[in-house]
Amino acid sequence: MTPVADTTRTQVAIVGGGPAGLMLSHLLHVAGIESVVVDNRTVEQIETTHRAGILERDSVRLLVDSGASDRVLTDGHEHEGIALRFGGVSHRIDFQKLTGASCWLYPQTDVFIDLHRTRTRDAGDLRYGITDTEVTGVEDAPTVRYTDADGTRQEITAELVVGADGSRSICRPLIANAHQYFREYPFAWFGVMVQAPPSAPELIYNRSPEGFALISQRTDTVQRMYFQCDPTENPDDWSDDRIWEQLHTRLSGEDGFRLKEGPVLERTVLPFRSFVQSPMRHGRLLLAGDAAHTVPPTGAKGLNLALSDVRVLAEVIEQALNKNDDNALDTYTDRALSRVWKAQHFSYWMTTMLHNVSGASDFDEQRQLGELQTLVSSEAGSTYLAEGYTGWPHH
Amino acid sequence: MTPVADTTRTQVAIVGGGPAGLMLSHLLHVAGIESVVVDNRTVEQIETTHRAGILERDSVRLLVDSGASDRVLTDGHEHEGIALRFGGVSHRIDFQKLTGASCWLYPQTDVFIDLHRTRTRDAGDLRYGITDTEVTGVEDAPTVRYTDADGTRQEITAELVVGADGSRSICRPLIANAHQYFREYPFAWFGVMVQAPPSAPELIYNRSPEGFALISQRTDTVQRMYFQCDPTENPDDWSDDRIWEQLHTRLSGEDGFRLKEGPVLERTVLPFRSFVQSPMRHGRLLLAGDAAHTVPPTGAKGLNLALSDVRVLAEVIEQALNKNDDNALDTYTDRALSRVWKAQHFSYWMTTMLHNVSGASDFDEQRQLGELQTLVSSEAGSTYLAEGYTGWPHH
Repeated sequence: MTPVADTTRTQVAIVGGGPAGLMLSHLLHVAGIESVVVDNRTVEQIETTHRAGILERDSVRLLVDSGASDRVLTDGHEHEGIALRFGGVSHRIDFQKLTGASCWLYPQTDVFIDLHRTRTRDAGDLRYGITDTEVTGVEDAPTVRYTDADGTRQEITAELVVGADGSRSICRPLIANAHQYFREYPFAWFGVMVQAPPSAPELIYNRSPEGFALISQRTDTVQRMYFQCDPTENPDDWSDDRIWEQLHTRLSGEDGFRLKEGPVLERTVLPFRSFVQSPMRHGRLLLAGDAAHTVPPTGAKGLNLALSDVRVLAEVIEQALNKNDDNALDTYTDRALSRVWKAQHFSYWMTTMLHNVSGASDFDEQRQLGELQTLVSSEAGSTYLAEGYTGWPHH
Repeated sequence: MTPVADTTRTQVAIVGGGPAGLMLSHLLHVAGIESVVVDNRTVEQIETTHRAGILERDSVRLLVDSGASDRVLTDGHEHEGIALRFGGVSHRIDFQKLTGASCWLYPQTDVFIDLHRTRTRDAGDLRYGITDTEVTGVEDAPTVRYTDADGTRQEITAELVVGADGSRSICRPLIANAHQYFREYPFAWFGVMVQAPPSAPELIYNRSPEGFALISQRTDTVQRMYFQCDPTENPDDWSDDRIWEQLHTRLSGEDGFRLKEGPVLERTVLPFRSFVQSPMRHGRLLLAGDAAHTVPPTGAKGLNLALSDVRVLAEVIEQALNKNDDNALDTYTDRALSRVWKAQHFSYWMTTMLHNVSGASDFDEQRQLGELQTLVSSEAGSTYLAEGYTGWPHH
């Protein structure tokens, strides 16, 4: 490595400039704490990578109330419920009626764009498109080194370093003796972006004998849909016709519901796994979001969980740095993980209730339908699901 | 076989004189329909075989409102809730507060004694301790033949025959082309009857790293307890001390809860399986209770499901025989099974939420705790469980 050219001194070095890292940087800024954000992706790469699209109530509140952005309220779409569809019939879960809460359809890329704009407006120190990032001194003197776009080696020293650098985190391995919890699922999601008008005003979580499908929305002219597939599927093997045939078959029913078709703009196979690392903190290093945990996409908890981590993290960092109370850092793992394990269960529940496990007995298929029937015919059951979907209260 | 000595003509022949068969016979009697009940067990055998002990609200109502017996109200114990215990802490699920319903602790043997007394009082034709029962003519001319205590071959001809003859039903195989749904569980329950005062006023469903345990009650001096075990365990290998050690370990906790000990009066290993046969009717034969379906014991649905079958069955038989409406019989399977599959799911849910599956990952253990934590901290979740436990409304 070339020698370091410049050293920046800051309070919190944040590795990862996605929504979690930027939101943390913003919340710290509001609390009067300096940070520097580094990310090896470019802003354009992040802006064009399609990810999740559903925000919990408190994720929206965090964006709006923190002053990060209220664009979600104008450009986002409030969803007051979802449909659970099985046996060819849709059953609406009315979140507003049951819990007084909504979700918002607002793509992760827009959350990123908003946060990036706000941090730029506030003269945040954001360094994208860097390479060869390394983090050292997490025990007592956190240092982040990287090579900038000009090929110059740079250094950031900080009081704390946060790893918000996603599922391939370089920070995660720096937590010594951590325990890693895994779960694999025997399926994946085939995700498509299609050019078509919306087929429904809200998300449809559909169980069928052929497998799960999710009908989601993006804009008036572009829609997001998914269907359960084998993890080994190659997206290139799937013509538009073959994709629409799968979706039509799974969504077919007695009620005459029919998907609106259009050209498939993008097709990807999304892996399906659960992961949790504990603890989420070691010395002066703290993890947030996918760096510490991954949920399967069913239930849309990933981004929300990252924002929830960041909310707690901003609080404990403020106590640690502004009030010299390092004990606050000790509480981080437990506070964050109590929500993570709820979300892991929720995602597992939504997944197992709606997917076909290959080799599942016909007993389990009927039991699954028995569960769905019990759930949609119970106000309490529907409320329990709505609470999880719109997000549990923060403690 | 010896020739038949006597032929009895009746409207409904009921094979199986346990609570389901007797309750049906009673409900038919109230509706002015004649029946004959046969069972190869003796009354004494049935009275002394310990089975389930928890009645749903509507099971109690059925007993009382039908005039079968109101002894449950005086000798039974109303339970207004249960405790879910995990991490060494008990969390009460308050059924009354959440749903306005209770369960009743009232052993199946007492339900049998009550029904037997009532049917005897009403001069019901009950034939216990018979042998070599066979059922024929289920398509159009149901006939039951058996050998009585004197060795004489007897015959009953009827308009309908009901198989309420338990999990080893001789009627079940007579339903042609039925579909059988199975699920095996990789564990069993070790059940003990102990001579001790109650350790708690209500049932405790306990999850611990060592496995599930259930603390139940019978009387002021005799208690019923269970703990999850390997299906191959031999009860004779378990001394009193070894049993109490297991129970103490599993129930230990931060709150100082301590089981009250006493001599173990009875020890058995209960199998754990799920089974459903569909349809539950063929021609003039209808099945009820364990003859058609088995649930694992978690959640105490077995007897309640049998009584629920019988409630529907009495209704359709009354329509068929008193109103000459055979179409009513066609509705039986769907009406009964819609509740059966809910109960199968409920039993599965209670089981998987509270048991240790050998070979389960540490991920699944934490997720299980995440579920329990979500459930007990949600009024809606707790209500959803309470609804299932106290019994869904009848349609």
